[in-house]
Amino acid sequence: NNYFKIAVLPGDGIGPEIISESIKILDVIAEAFQCKFHFDYGLIGAEAIFKTGNPLPEETLKICKESDAVLFGAIGDPIFDNNPEAKVRPEQGLLKLRKELGLFANIRPLKTYASLIDKSPLKREIIEGADIQIFRELVSGIYFGEKFTDPEGAYAYDICKYSREDIIPIAHMAFQEAQKRKKKLTLIDKANVLDTSRLWRKICQEIAPEYPDVQLDYMFVDNAAMQLILNPKHFDVILTENMFGDIISDEASVIGGSIGLLPSASVGEKNALFEPIHGSYPQAKGKGIANPIASILSVAMMLDHLNVKAAADKLRQSVEHAIENKYVTIDLNTKQYYSTSEVGSFIADHI
Amino acid sequence: NNYFKIAVLPGDGIGPEIISESIKILDVIAEAFQCKFHFDYGLIGAEAIFKTGNPLPEETLKICKESDAVLFGAIGDPIFDNNPEAKVRPEQGLLKLRKELGLFANIRPLKTYASLIDKSPLKREIIEGADIQIFRELVSGIYFGEKFTDPEGAYAYDICKYSREDIIPIAHMAFQEAQKRKKKLTLIDKANVLDTSRLWRKICQEIAPEYPDVQLDYMFVDNAAMQLILNPKHFDVILTENMFGDIISDEASVIGGSIGLLPSASVGEKNALFEPIHGSYPQAKGKGIANPIASILSVAMMLDHLNVKAAADKLRQSVEHAIENKYVTIDLNTKQYYSTSEVGSFIADHI
Ligand SMILES: CC(C)[C@H](C(=O)O)[C@@H](O)C(=O)O
Ligand SMILES: CC(C)[C@H](C(=O)O)[C@@H](O)C(=O)O
Repeated sequence: NNYFKIAVLPGDGIGPEIISESIKILDVIAEAFQCKFHFDYGLIGAEAIFKTGNPLPEETLKICKESDAVLFGAIGDPIFDNNPEAKVRPEQGLLKLRKELGLFANIRPLKTYASLIDKSPLKREIIEGADIQIFRELVSGIYFGEKFTDPEGAYAYDICKYSREDIIPIAHMAFQEAQKRKKKLTLIDKANVLDTSRLWRKICQEIAPEYPDVQLDYMFVDNAAMQLILNPKHFDVILTENMFGDIISDEASVIGGSIGLLPSASVGEKNALFEPIHGSYPQAKGKGIANPIASILSVAMMLDHLNVKAAADKLRQSVEHAIENKYVTIDLNTKQYYSTSEVGSFIADHI
Repeated sequence: NNYFKIAVLPGDGIGPEIISESIKILDVIAEAFQCKFHFDYGLIGAEAIFKTGNPLPEETLKICKESDAVLFGAIGDPIFDNNPEAKVRPEQGLLKLRKELGLFANIRPLKTYASLIDKSPLKREIIEGADIQIFRELVSGIYFGEKFTDPEGAYAYDICKYSREDIIPIAHMAFQEAQKRKKKLTLIDKANVLDTSRLWRKICQEIAPEYPDVQLDYMFVDNAAMQLILNPKHFDVILTENMFGDIISDEASVIGGSIGLLPSASVGEKNALFEPIHGSYPQAKGKGIANPIASILSVAMMLDHLNVKAAADKLRQSVEHAIENKYVTIDLNTKQYYSTSEVGSFIADHI
């Protein structure tokens, strides 16, 4: 199969700018690797609220369900963030999309690039050689549990709930990935306080014997937040629940020196979505300064997923070539830098 | 008043070793500053479970309630951590104590010591001059909400609940502290997803006009986990809920280069408790290698609280003197180091 239906959701802020570089890349890949991509564009987030009142219009959901993969830009707008009363929010669009598509595992690879190591706030000897793969559960936990705000505003609650079925599939996925890597899996939780964390620990203990070559260890989330910075090389594969994964994976993004480089895949039984881990970065919108690489590397993850591995590898090489030749945006080099679209074109040309 | 009743709770792991250095210090302070400390020792944590079956025996609670201040060591034991079925856990002792004493605010000052700056995993230019004060809500949220595990083990939940009264007092405290410092307060939350976070944001917005000289800003916890490492100097006073505070404050502890230096105060209307932020560090137990400084600086916070400010200042100077003269434990200097009790005595002698 070399015909793929891609749902394209540029979203808010710098989303449209970086997504158009990813499309540029896919056009070149189509030619070079004899495949065909059909793009269906959909509205999501603040953009969708402004135009339709709904952060995830039915039409967008339909396009995504029928796609072979979803290419996602970014979401979020400060207008909503500082208004605790807003009933409709851009993030609801992304959360609902994750839920509806059953994207239960968010996968974030983290590594360092030799030529960028000095960009990191961490010392070279701490991060050199760090290589972590994070599996964050994405469709349960406190994000999706019942929420309530008392109409008088006297109190509010959010429920964090996990059932066995929410945990088992992603746990297997993480164990299997560990088998392909350094055979070390760290479950991050707060099992000394939370019942849900104890359920995670119990299930991982049950599953562990099926993967006798993988060493499973546990770390409390507070300690993990420390160890990720003190000794990132301790980690190989990390498995964690939704909220802890949100915090820990963003924290871990500082290791490599630029969040503008980090891709992610969110996968389920039927669908998969690919997005940069950075957000909508509204301050940079329309300025042509956004780093397109995180989105472009998300395309590489998408190509792996679509089983066009040769294209994925070529694309990753082309990105490394751009980085090594300092053909990068201002976030990576303030002295000599190129625009979003110049960097996209440079990478496309190398393919 | 120069007579103080101190409840002393050494707890687990290295707790007893570091606490005995703090007592050594208090004995010297009593003499030098004409005050008298009466010490009542209590059991807590794993130690208390082994001896009484209860992680917080009634007697311990009574001693604490009647005290002018509680001096706390550490809590936790790996025997319980890896057993998801354990019904009684050391941590329950500390959590119950916080709740019973109404210690709603956990205060953690973070700063860098010139002579230790190179111990940090972060680069000098990132951390030099960083000075943060964290206010973590300590007796509500997901730690204390209803918890449930289905008897068949099919699912579990934890409820994060906040009411106005839980938030208002600590919010005022944080605004007031900001007024004494650089007049900048950052509320860390996840208001784009959680109802409880939106309640925090709303209340802070309501209170803000009473502190017109303080600049209030908001940051999502995932972004904060990143910014703390990328740019710790951005922060002055941080205010956050219980679970986020647990993660963020441990993460922030890496800034200064050693978690073995960081004290904390947990305060309520009537009582106050002082503890190092490091844990029970069971691997080091009984080896005489634990760093006593975090506990000793917690004593300094206690002396401030008891209004013996001159003694608190002198104690802090003595600690700085020890650090500058490299009279430290192995965690701070692997080439030339001293034992827990040598460091304690060196500091005591300087007073
Ligand atoms: C936008 C927001 C709801 C989202 C999340 O918290 O999951 C984002 O931070 C992410 O990590 O993808
Ligand atoms: C021991 C544990 C329950 C405790 C917490 O999570 O509050 C500790 O990590 C802390 O931060 O004081």
